[in-house]
Amino acid sequence: MPKIFSVIMAGGVGTRFWPRSRERFPKQFLEIVGSGSLLQKTLARFGPLADKRQTFVVTNAVQAEAVRTQAPDIPNENILVEPVGRNTAPCIGLAASWIRRLDPDALMVVSPADHLIEDDEEFLRILKLALRVAEEKDALVTIGIKPTHPETGYGYIQSAEEELDQNPYRAEGVYRVKTFAEKPNLETAERFLSSGDFFWNSGIFVWRAGTILKEIELHLPELHEELLTVQKSIDSPNYQQVLDLAYGVIRSISIDYGVMEKAGNAFVVRGDFGWSDVGSWDEVVRVTPKDGEGNSLKGKVIVRDATNNFIDAGNKLVAAIGVKDLVIINTDDAILICKKGESQEVKEVVDYIRRKQMNEFL
Amino acid sequence: MPKIFSVIMAGGVGTRFWPRSRERFPKQFLEIVGSGSLLQKTLARFGPLADKRQTFVVTNAVQAEAVRTQAPDIPNENILVEPVGRNTAPCIGLAASWIRRLDPDALMVVSPADHLIEDDEEFLRILKLALRVAEEKDALVTIGIKPTHPETGYGYIQSAEEELDQNPYRAEGVYRVKTFAEKPNLETAERFLSSGDFFWNSGIFVWRAGTILKEIELHLPELHEELLTVQKSIDSPNYQQVLDLAYGVIRSISIDYGVMEKAGNAFVVRGDFGWSDVGSWDEVVRVTPKDGEGNSLKGKVIVRDATNNFIDAGNKLVAAIGVKDLVIINTDDAILICKKGESQEVKEVVDYIRRKQMNEFL
Repeated sequence: MPKIFSVIMAGGVGTRFWPRSRERFPKQFLEIVGSGSLLQKTLARFGPLADKRQTFVVTNAVQAEAVRTQAPDIPNENILVEPVGRNTAPCIGLAASWIRRLDPDALMVVSPADHLIEDDEEFLRILKLALRVAEEKDALVTIGIKPTHPETGYGYIQSAEEELDQNPYRAEGVYRVKTFAEKPNLETAERFLSSGDFFWNSGIFVWRAGTILKEIELHLPELHEELLTVQKSIDSPNYQQVLDLAYGVIRSISIDYGVMEKAGNAFVVRGDFGWSDVGSWDEVVRVTPKDGEGNSLKGKVIVRDATNNFIDAGNKLVAAIGVKDLVIINTDDAILICKKGESQEVKEVVDYIRRKQMNEFL
Repeated sequence: MPKIFSVIMAGGVGTRFWPRSRERFPKQFLEIVGSGSLLQKTLARFGPLADKRQTFVVTNAVQAEAVRTQAPDIPNENILVEPVGRNTAPCIGLAASWIRRLDPDALMVVSPADHLIEDDEEFLRILKLALRVAEEKDALVTIGIKPTHPETGYGYIQSAEEELDQNPYRAEGVYRVKTFAEKPNLETAERFLSSGDFFWNSGIFVWRAGTILKEIELHLPELHEELLTVQKSIDSPNYQQVLDLAYGVIRSISIDYGVMEKAGNAFVVRGDFGWSDVGSWDEVVRVTPKDGEGNSLKGKVIVRDATNNFIDAGNKLVAAIGVKDLVIINTDDAILICKKGESQEVKEVVDYIRRKQMNEFL
């Protein structure tokens, strides 16, 4: 069996967790649920699959220091620092280039650093199934989540119709991919949900490093050329300079759009392990335990006649009287008070802050 | 015409403006509406009536420093520091003792430091009318506010039925007092309101210093005895010691309950000058100007889809999304988020803080 590498993508710049998340300290570094940041939880989750030397974290210059601080066990050379974020295809290509160089047959699992998974054991079982498929079929395998509601914030994957004799893995929840679909509107999402053959795109991928690089060569030849140049310079003293030059010309493109949609040998493995991309405060509220009044309270909080609130008091005392369905987040320099169900508007607040150049709050 | 003295009672220990008001910094020192604290507004209001040397501020040891800081123009000897608060009768008696000593015929106007009055000019007109009645009739005069709703948070004054030939001042809105009533329940308050002969007790009084001391002698002889002892020591080096001893035995009692209810010569002057005791955040909200969305915003505040909120951001940035009818107060160490109409519960929160001995937040 070839070596297994895990690649954690930790370059997100999400603004949806303002005021907790900031430009230099985005979601993956936050202790959103329970103890440990999302990045730390992700690293722990992959621990049983690949040891530290076979774990890569891809991040960017602004966040590299936070990654090193939060992941002190990961060897420094395994923290790949992109000069600038260029979406997932270059990120994955860079990691694959490093990994293929270490082991031409290596399998790799790619995962965002900022998702939440409730059942780590089941998650590992699914990953092992996906690794088997990736190895045996030399396939690009993605993990699909069975949708529970017509979510408009996720991409979708449609599975193809096949007979069991064409694809014996079908019995284990492994399907050939028919199409990838961008984030739908509500009507389309409802159609996806009722059709039964659509999955949420978790952004978690499994493949041979060599296979994804071959597919990048096929569908994104310019990127592949830059990656080759970078790979050749890995051991040279001018690696950083080569990398900077490469990222100066590499265009921003997602692996889904740039490769997966065009690949002939893509599979989706159905997963059901309590996945959430925790993409908004509302999603955090959903996955956080609540007390008898439906409140989730963190820090010094006094409530009276208050129900179904999510309150993080930060370093202050918060008193909440007569309020319900609120998300209240106190940080060192800013406070958010948001009605539940409207946390997508946080992004608009951050945009407003940017427009007004109140940069100290970004 | 005898000299007119104003006496500002600034010893309030209100907890209803937590977290802005604190034990050492109660409501009268806060900039609740517009610029200047309530104490400073009160002093300015009385400026045209009595000059600084004829203005006394009665406070207590804990708050004396704040009074001196906020009222630097008031001569230090005019700031009377009670060793401990004993409600309004001792406070007024002490001030009257000082004033009678300066001028045996002096008239005095007594007012709490923490009320809000919109129409200062009309207020002064009413005070002058009250001063005339107090002088001519040697009466105890109180200012009554025409009630606009069945408020349960105020005391009430009932006016007596009289013919104009018995009381020609009646034409100017001056009535003999029939009874004083404590804070009523809602049913009683509604009855008071519909009866038409009840006024809110503003806690503002006008009388000769000598007259109120004579009434104290009659109805609170023990207090009067202590006050005489104190008065005799005013110029002596052991004044403070005498005062401390006196306040050690003086019992806590209000001027309404201890004197006014029993006095034979009490009048109420009807006033209509935009009076508010600003006794809660809800009352502050009521008297604060609002923008087109019904919001009152102070400091750095970003609102989206938010209406009818009162937000004081303190030294942070506050973002409010999708919320309505909230009072949000940020201070250095605590944040209040309170549904409008429930701000009377703030007192309960402070009681809770006290019970839990979280003294740093008191």
